[in-house]
Amino acid sequence: MMTEAAIAAALITDNANLYYLTGRVFAGMIYLPREGQPVYLVRRPVELEGKGVVYFTGTRDIPAELEHRGLPKPSTLGLEMDLTPYTTVIRYTKLWREATPVNISPMMRQARSVKTPQEIHLIERSGVCHERVYRRIPRVFKPGMTDLELQVEIERMSRLEGCLGQFRISGDTMEIYMGNVITGDNADAPSPYDFAMGGAGLDPSLPVGADGSEIRRGNTVMVDMNGNFTGYMTDMSRTFAFGDIEPLAQKAHECSREILRALEQMARPGIEARTLYDTAYDMAREAQLETYFMGHRQHAGFVGHGIGIEVNEAPVIAPRSRDILAERNVIALEPKFVIPHVGAVGVENSYVVTPTGLRCLTNAPEDLLPL
Amino acid sequence: MMTEAAIAAALITDNANLYYLTGRVFAGMIYLPREGQPVYLVRRPVELEGKGVVYFTGTRDIPAELEHRGLPKPSTLGLEMDLTPYTTVIRYTKLWREATPVNISPMMRQARSVKTPQEIHLIERSGVCHERVYRRIPRVFKPGMTDLELQVEIERMSRLEGCLGQFRISGDTMEIYMGNVITGDNADAPSPYDFAMGGAGLDPSLPVGADGSEIRRGNTVMVDMNGNFTGYMTDMSRTFAFGDIEPLAQKAHECSREILRALEQMARPGIEARTLYDTAYDMAREAQLETYFMGHRQHAGFVGHGIGIEVNEAPVIAPRSRDILAERNVIALEPKFVIPHVGAVGVENSYVVTPTGLRCLTNAPEDLLPL
Repeated sequence: MMTEAAIAAALITDNANLYYLTGRVFAGMIYLPREGQPVYLVRRPVELEGKGVVYFTGTRDIPAELEHRGLPKPSTLGLEMDLTPYTTVIRYTKLWREATPVNISPMMRQARSVKTPQEIHLIERSGVCHERVYRRIPRVFKPGMTDLELQVEIERMSRLEGCLGQFRISGDTMEIYMGNVITGDNADAPSPYDFAMGGAGLDPSLPVGADGSEIRRGNTVMVDMNGNFTGYMTDMSRTFAFGDIEPLAQKAHECSREILRALEQMARPGIEARTLYDTAYDMAREAQLETYFMGHRQHAGFVGHGIGIEVNEAPVIAPRSRDILAERNVIALEPKFVIPHVGAVGVENSYVVTPTGLRCLTNAPEDLLPL
Repeated sequence: MMTEAAIAAALITDNANLYYLTGRVFAGMIYLPREGQPVYLVRRPVELEGKGVVYFTGTRDIPAELEHRGLPKPSTLGLEMDLTPYTTVIRYTKLWREATPVNISPMMRQARSVKTPQEIHLIERSGVCHERVYRRIPRVFKPGMTDLELQVEIERMSRLEGCLGQFRISGDTMEIYMGNVITGDNADAPSPYDFAMGGAGLDPSLPVGADGSEIRRGNTVMVDMNGNFTGYMTDMSRTFAFGDIEPLAQKAHECSREILRALEQMARPGIEARTLYDTAYDMAREAQLETYFMGHRQHAGFVGHGIGIEVNEAPVIAPRSRDILAERNVIALEPKFVIPHVGAVGVENSYVVTPTGLRCLTNAPEDLLPL
């Protein structure tokens, strides 16, 4: 990709991109020439070893260090301009004044959207742990619990199962802690973030998710909790029912499953992501459920998204998306409905795109699960 | 401050700064003119109400919207250039081509470092909850536990006590989940992040903190867990001892407390932050403990930091800091030592700077606490 775009070298500093390129996070950066060996410019931790590892203190010393190692000055320099703060990018562009700076963020995003077999393996491992936690959710529920109390027990099970906790989101505008457990009308509370699920949250500093409501009979509980067990996450939602749930909500839950089955059939390399969204929306409309589709008072503008190190990777399954599905994309599909006075219903699964269609990585039961 | 710097208006988008200025987080931005009423440009959530609230979709529509409200075009425009990604800043500067863009990040940082009484009240409330959790830690410990197992029980207690979980760190380079529980030699494992405590972590994607080590007799457990209960956090560490701890570690723990007492006496408005660091370092050296001060294989380069919405606010208590303490700064002081084969020892407290000195907000017992 760098050759096609005539980028001589890239300077990579974002933690998710460092992890993608090296398999670990460190404080520092990677100087990635189009040809030849990358150089790992490390500040911390001390005592890293390996080919190409160089300790440095001042950013200004980098050009001399690279020259010393026989690397030519770059004619064009890729920088993560969609992520790196303005003043930092300006500082980097001054390192090689002759180099033309180029935004390498879209290319990194594109590269990361097609997973390697090793990355898929790490996501599969997360999926296995994620499933194991979800299967045990009914056991930790007690009547009278609040959404938060149930969430805390799920957090505990997840962490003991090896969940790393960190819920990585690219960019700095979306925040959430460990996931979302939502019941009753709180599912209809609009949040500032572009997640499929809202919720008022516990505090105006983090207005999303559980708000301390008691889980009441006749309400659903949607669980959409962190699946990051390996640095690569699965994304999975399941809906639990406390007591009898009204027919409209049951119908919407079945509609979500039918949408997933339809998308599983359609999705394959080469298909436009937006056609998946259109199919999902059309099915919701045909079932006369479009008022509740992906929210009620506030609607999310997508039905799925790429996942991996972060929860908002490419491709985006949305009406105006220009993304085209490729083999080894890993995506989450989450056709959800918010039914007033009942709660959210629906299912979210994570999938690998294979030549013949989708392979599901989150195989916990999909029914409306009794609590 | 904007008047002094001749900044006509600022466009604020960072979540922490939005929360600082409005008391809540929303998706959108604040147009803050030097004179007159701010305008809250909101994308989500739907249904926000209040003076100056305007819904918008495209960033390009903002200048027309503001003109429509009778606001003059800004001659200089403050942008959060230390935080906002490069491409976003470029997009904003194109909104008013005649305006001179100015980096407002240092000014926001400076403004936020002096807390209002309301902010101090929120931090105090966090401190009360934080203390309550720490006092109960010995009750959830069981011999044979790993550091992770103990941390998970503390996470659970914290969340049930109302901890919001989100551990806000300014900038995108430092990551941690919910805090740090560290025992034995894992305290001496260097991490990539500039925290006072290291630890190998559970996975190379998040190499910090608990690594699954069993808590052994003769080892300490340092607990440095999230104190964000209100959107404004306290920062507090306490050291627990499992069985008898060797004299060197006991001595270092007492030295930490003596350093805190000395800094509590010295610190007042007008004092240079670096003199606090120098005093702490000198006391460690006089006690012949400088090899272990703020780390052993890897040393952190500070002994304290401002706290509030984020854990790395101004002032910075470090050797080359140019910060000067001001009334209503809120700071954490954390003289810590890492003793090989024992673990980390020391105490961290959060304080408000008052005209007569420091007032402590984290009043849990400071002794080496038996498990």
